[in-house]
Amino acid sequence: MTMKNRQFNAHEQQTLLDIIALRRDIRGNNFLPDTLCEKDLEKILCAASLAPSVGLSQPWQFVVVQNQATRTLIADNHLIENEKAKAKFSDEKQHLYSQLKLEGIKEAPVNIAVFYQPKDEVVLGQNSMPEMGEYSVVCAIQNMWLMARSLNIGLGWVSILDPKIVKNILKAPAESKLVAYLCLGKVKEFLERPELEVLNWQQRENIKLNYEAFGQTNDEIKS
Amino acid sequence: MTMKNRQFNAHEQQTLLDIIALRRDIRGNNFLPDTLCEKDLEKILCAASLAPSVGLSQPWQFVVVQNQATRTLIADNHLIENEKAKAKFSDEKQHLYSQLKLEGIKEAPVNIAVFYQPKDEVVLGQNSMPEMGEYSVVCAIQNMWLMARSLNIGLGWVSILDPKIVKNILKAPAESKLVAYLCLGKVKEFLERPELEVLNWQQRENIKLNYEAFGQTNDEIKS
Repeated sequence: MTMKNRQFNAHEQQTLLDIIALRRDIRGNNFLPDTLCEKDLEKILCAASLAPSVGLSQPWQFVVVQNQATRTLIADNHLIENEKAKAKFSDEKQHLYSQLKLEGIKEAPVNIAVFYQPKDEVVLGQNSMPEMGEYSVVCAIQNMWLMARSLNIGLGWVSILDPKIVKNILKAPAESKLVAYLCLGKVKEFLERPELEVLNWQQRENIKLNYEAFGQTNDEIKS
Repeated sequence: MTMKNRQFNAHEQQTLLDIIALRRDIRGNNFLPDTLCEKDLEKILCAASLAPSVGLSQPWQFVVVQNQATRTLIADNHLIENEKAKAKFSDEKQHLYSQLKLEGIKEAPVNIAVFYQPKDEVVLGQNSMPEMGEYSVVCAIQNMWLMARSLNIGLGWVSILDPKIVKNILKAPAESKLVAYLCLGKVKEFLERPELEVLNWQQRENIKLNYEAFGQTNDEIKS
């Protein structure tokens, strides 16, 4: 069967929309300890490998972390960074912040650190916008997130970490850059709405469209 | 119908994999001039608005560009940046580079410039890794790309542009950052494999997995 020019139908478009709409950021209050099967993990990483990348450079590196000692080091760094981050908020927000569980480093059965690994050679499309390498890695992560959700597996992106410390713990090469630290596992539930919305931390907004230039008319796209 | 805990089945997982695998970067040699309907454009932007964002900050801004004069200015900048980029390659590669059509700014019926707009307030999750704001915008773009493909609409990401010039042309606020310049439209064909692979510019690679730390064992994930 050739896949060339494969056309998708309304039912398939709705499936994608459902996966996109029901994807959630999963934290330690929601992970189950159940082991992830190898096959599911392969499917998630396969989705990453099919992501767009600038000049087809595929500049991603993945480190699968399951070792408890390593995770304890990472989680310890999260605690430090989380205190620093909390201090930036107003007293009122700090109170709510303290009640949030913002990572599942130890609770999830699998962690995956994702790095951007710059190429030794010139990359097509990366001259005027050098960030395109990192952006390619982020596209791969979003593919992973959606594939995980379709497999009914939760994924959480932990960004409250010092990238330099994580690099040291995982013995990453000097030139590589930590883009994401992901936690994956089965979940107790997928919430209908994002947890930060449910807890009134932040509300969903409609997209305000600009036409032709910034500030010109403002159609709203309701999500 | 509650969407809470919606479970997806093997058929739906395969649909997502097909959309992911058959998404292509579409350039001017492949766009048709046919108008895009408003409804499809809304669906693509709705997918963007459902993307994960750090602290639910939703730090994205979209400028829909259809005006010919604006597009000519953007395309002129592409020509300048493309010459600079070409000069970085070896003579042999420059020959092939010259034959590549790397954007569809004028050929696509719709262009969308996507910007990262930093918040005035502290954002949850963005203290230790400030790039999380831009990364959120990239997640939205990957959602758009997949939704477009499911609607059988092509999308191309043009990165051979000077972001400062594009900002000026589109009257973007000083603090905003151009993340992507996208071209969207109906296509002549969706190639079975990426064009850069077909033309032998670059080959697809299997993912090399690291376990526990960099350099430890190397399982390959075949895509």
